[in-house]
Amino acid sequence: MSAAKLLGVGVGPGDPELITLKAMRALGEADVVAHFAKAGNASHSRVIVARHLRPGVTELPLYYPVTTELPSCSDGYRDSIRDFYDGAAATIAAHLEAGRVVAVIAEGDPLFYGSYMHLHTRLAPRYPTEIVAGVTGMSGCWSAAGVPIAQGNDVFTVLPATLPEAELERRLADTDAVVVMKVGRHLPKLRRALERSGRLPHAIYVERGTMADAKMIPLATKPDDEAPYFAIVLVPGWEERP
Amino acid sequence: MSAAKLLGVGVGPGDPELITLKAMRALGEADVVAHFAKAGNASHSRVIVARHLRPGVTELPLYYPVTTELPSCSDGYRDSIRDFYDGAAATIAAHLEAGRVVAVIAEGDPLFYGSYMHLHTRLAPRYPTEIVAGVTGMSGCWSAAGVPIAQGNDVFTVLPATLPEAELERRLADTDAVVVMKVGRHLPKLRRALERSGRLPHAIYVERGTMADAKMIPLATKPDDEAPYFAIVLVPGWEERP
Repeated sequence: MSAAKLLGVGVGPGDPELITLKAMRALGEADVVAHFAKAGNASHSRVIVARHLRPGVTELPLYYPVTTELPSCSDGYRDSIRDFYDGAAATIAAHLEAGRVVAVIAEGDPLFYGSYMHLHTRLAPRYPTEIVAGVTGMSGCWSAAGVPIAQGNDVFTVLPATLPEAELERRLADTDAVVVMKVGRHLPKLRRALERSGRLPHAIYVERGTMADAKMIPLATKPDDEAPYFAIVLVPGWEERP
Repeated sequence: MSAAKLLGVGVGPGDPELITLKAMRALGEADVVAHFAKAGNASHSRVIVARHLRPGVTELPLYYPVTTELPSCSDGYRDSIRDFYDGAAATIAAHLEAGRVVAVIAEGDPLFYGSYMHLHTRLAPRYPTEIVAGVTGMSGCWSAAGVPIAQGNDVFTVLPATLPEAELERRLADTDAVVVMKVGRHLPKLRRALERSGRLPHAIYVERGTMADAKMIPLATKPDDEAPYFAIVLVPGWEERP
């Protein structure tokens, strides 16, 4: 019997080749492979690693609760999400108590804006835990777009597009390099904030960054404000190129 | 003969297992593997990939000019560095003109604070170029330390410790999650800025993050202000954990 261990395994931004040797070894070692998914959908992280799953490995899909009827800032939503993570952690804890190695696979990097973090805070204090760092979604995007993002003494900032417009504008003007995440329906507001902060001419819009059908265009030339939730906008730094 | 191509290949933060399948394929495909190093030192990126180099592949070490006699802000230093990158790009261009595939290996991610970027800006406009994203040094560090760094609507910032003290203090107070790079001799100043911005109690000092001899301690308990240039300090965000 292997010694119980929790593994938080980054599987990269989407391109199945952007998985690390360490992640593959973790998948080979795991008795149980857990993955988050929306109910009714395939887990993105599972799709990425499908070819590397050990035959016969126990899979543990963790389906987010369907909470579209609740506003995401409400107590009801928060309670529902907390109960979901508590339950998922309890299920994994039972496997760990039975001496199993449980790998939770995570798109991108496990500790950078990932759902795995909710399990980590609940379980890492109680069980031996290892993290396998992964290539982040944003690295995947600027690499696919061929955009040098930050250099030398640049300040680099990740901003959620959910911020209020004035706050976005202030922060866009106050950094060298920026990645704006969760663009989706916030694109009109983000475009205005980029315009007013003087950053629009260098902003690059990226959709499905590491997929075969990736779309990358200067935001200033994008004719509409339609964007999926996971679209991102890059504004490169490194103004003084020697 | 293969078609000429420039590959910027991220090889991850140091742990040889944190290389991706895509990077390994790029190394297998390359006629020439180029790597940056300090004169008299082994290239870190070459050490990381040593076991994956194709026997007989042409290696092209690119040695940074020895410029310790010049202050790094001087025109002389800038000219010397620019000449070095111009020369390196010309050498690589000659290989590309001869129809070869040239892989430039880069620690971490090639377009995130990496030397490869200087070759990219010189060569990518003229030759077919592909980037292989890599696991960044900072991901390697927070993963080794098991520190969930940012979540949800957190603002995440990378700061160079070279910034003036007041600027560091202001920016540390104005973000949720922070990675401070290039700590080295700036640690006393950084410690004061963390203290005054109220972030010191949560700051974690990481040295040689993805090496076997990694050192991670709460900065508040670190008894001295000695730090190598590549040490980093993490201040996690995600205050509201559901």
